[in-house]
Amino acid sequence: MPIFHANQLINTGTKIFSAAGAPLEEARLVSELLVKSNLVGHDSHGIIRVIQYVGEIEKGFIKPGARIQVIKENSSTAILNGDWNFGQVVAKRSMELAIEKAKKNAIGIVCAFNCNHIGRLADYAIMASENNMIGIVVANSTKFVAPFGGKERVLSTGPICFAFPSNLEFPFVIDVATSVVAEGKVRVALHKGEKIPYGWIIDKDGNPSDNPKDLYDGGALLPLGGDEHGHKGFGLGLAVEVLSGILTGAGCAYEEDKRGNGVFFEVIDVEKFMSIEEFKKKVSDLIKVIKNSKLRPGFKEILIPGELEYLTERKRLKEGIYVPEKTWEEIKSLAKKLGIDEIP
Amino acid sequence: MPIFHANQLINTGTKIFSAAGAPLEEARLVSELLVKSNLVGHDSHGIIRVIQYVGEIEKGFIKPGARIQVIKENSSTAILNGDWNFGQVVAKRSMELAIEKAKKNAIGIVCAFNCNHIGRLADYAIMASENNMIGIVVANSTKFVAPFGGKERVLSTGPICFAFPSNLEFPFVIDVATSVVAEGKVRVALHKGEKIPYGWIIDKDGNPSDNPKDLYDGGALLPLGGDEHGHKGFGLGLAVEVLSGILTGAGCAYEEDKRGNGVFFEVIDVEKFMSIEEFKKKVSDLIKVIKNSKLRPGFKEILIPGELEYLTERKRLKEGIYVPEKTWEEIKSLAKKLGIDEIP
Repeated sequence: MPIFHANQLINTGTKIFSAAGAPLEEARLVSELLVKSNLVGHDSHGIIRVIQYVGEIEKGFIKPGARIQVIKENSSTAILNGDWNFGQVVAKRSMELAIEKAKKNAIGIVCAFNCNHIGRLADYAIMASENNMIGIVVANSTKFVAPFGGKERVLSTGPICFAFPSNLEFPFVIDVATSVVAEGKVRVALHKGEKIPYGWIIDKDGNPSDNPKDLYDGGALLPLGGDEHGHKGFGLGLAVEVLSGILTGAGCAYEEDKRGNGVFFEVIDVEKFMSIEEFKKKVSDLIKVIKNSKLRPGFKEILIPGELEYLTERKRLKEGIYVPEKTWEEIKSLAKKLGIDEIP
Repeated sequence: MPIFHANQLINTGTKIFSAAGAPLEEARLVSELLVKSNLVGHDSHGIIRVIQYVGEIEKGFIKPGARIQVIKENSSTAILNGDWNFGQVVAKRSMELAIEKAKKNAIGIVCAFNCNHIGRLADYAIMASENNMIGIVVANSTKFVAPFGGKERVLSTGPICFAFPSNLEFPFVIDVATSVVAEGKVRVALHKGEKIPYGWIIDKDGNPSDNPKDLYDGGALLPLGGDEHGHKGFGLGLAVEVLSGILTGAGCAYEEDKRGNGVFFEVIDVEKFMSIEEFKKKVSDLIKVIKNSKLRPGFKEILIPGELEYLTERKRLKEGIYVPEKTWEEIKSLAKKLGIDEIP
């Protein structure tokens, strides 16, 4: 059972991406963010993606080193053409620009298109909160989610992410899909040969299903709220689609040639509203009140958004990251193909 | 069964608020927005509130004519002290200012505190979309919602609202509570003596309940997503709380002296990103694709956010607004008390 230190995985990823043609800085950034996903417990967005990304470089979908261009800009806003560089590279640049604009003008909004998969939205929103600002990120991708009342896929899982500065031990960050579950959860059940609860997906005829395979046989994810309250997730998903698919120019999930992420980044400078110390104290007080409030029967703890990821990261930094045998064999053979011998 | 034209109700409201001490312009604005709620089918936010608002004027909670002050401002942001004028008056002023700032600087964010109940968020977000801009409104109020895993009320129902310009016949506006349902829905069931579905509320001990009375006996609403996915509604509700309760200075739902709404208004000028014609066309295309996509068994139509309200308004403008006998009697006796004789 291969277990690795984070740095071993980062170095492996960096070597592989470099060998596949990426500039060192990009190869390292992407590897760091992938391994960060492993550390916080989101393995589906972790080192396993190295295999996919190298495949996409070979197909010409990911263009390492591609020049990101600002195609429209004013003091508070910008639109970035990512020219299909790694999504992580485009997203980091976008968030840096949004932070810069917010520092000067209270608010910054940066939209990115021609942008590959960016990974976890939280990584970028946290860049803002670490700068004492509020970070908001929404993104679309390919279609997976049916509208409330419909059976065809028309929207992506449309995640919404907020990060807020605080005095808490962990980064206070909310990162939720507007579908009942992210697609990855269904895929995990499929790979494990397990059933899923009713209410996650419908099959190709629009009927409820507990078989994860039905999602990939023409079915669809349901919007957050499910059969009874799915109009809410549908509405929020639509808002994400307009902001990240239309305002960015990246294109909507329903479009046949859609790929990658359209991403909307917003940063708000807290200091333009109140002192950052006051803001952080009030956020921390709110969280403490909630954290210490009484539990429902059957629950052991009230988890604050961002908390579980933080606890997992602490654990995995110490104990290492487990990579499934099959995944590691694929990574090793990919490395070998690229002429790299000295990976762990 | 009293049925009225919208104008009759607006005039009645205007007379009552005027007699209760409100300047004519404020009396008319509040009445128009209340009756607008009746027109679009949200009777819980409609003319019935005249009774509550006059009570709050008498208690000194609502201060008609109070001077709204900008206490902090820069080119893109402002904080407004509503001085406890009608929430509608404060909200309209806030949104006007946010639109003005967005026209000049691409984005405007205005936060309001000391603000009474503002009614439907959609009314203000639509002010932006009617100006070819994106309108975003989030608000907090008193506590009603338990955190995921908890049984105590700590958050308000924290609605999120987006309005987008389009070429559609109806205003495309998303306005959803981050709780499973709005509190009003439980109250309606209570008044009708009906049970509610499991999954909406918990009782004071944190157990699932189908009895609406349990909400008012120390129970709580559940966050959107319910027992299985409630961490999502909880997360979104937390984001609303921070933006509208903390950044505004209005105070958090959990605070014992909390009343009224804290409100966060954001406006984004589409023209800073792309031509408004292109944006509207793309939004309209998205909606048409969804509207025409295939239905699930058991559904007759895919309703787009804002559509049902529009259809209801068309119907009620023609057929009139039904006001329950008991409500109308209360309004009549209130009018009489205030020395108004000539209401319908």
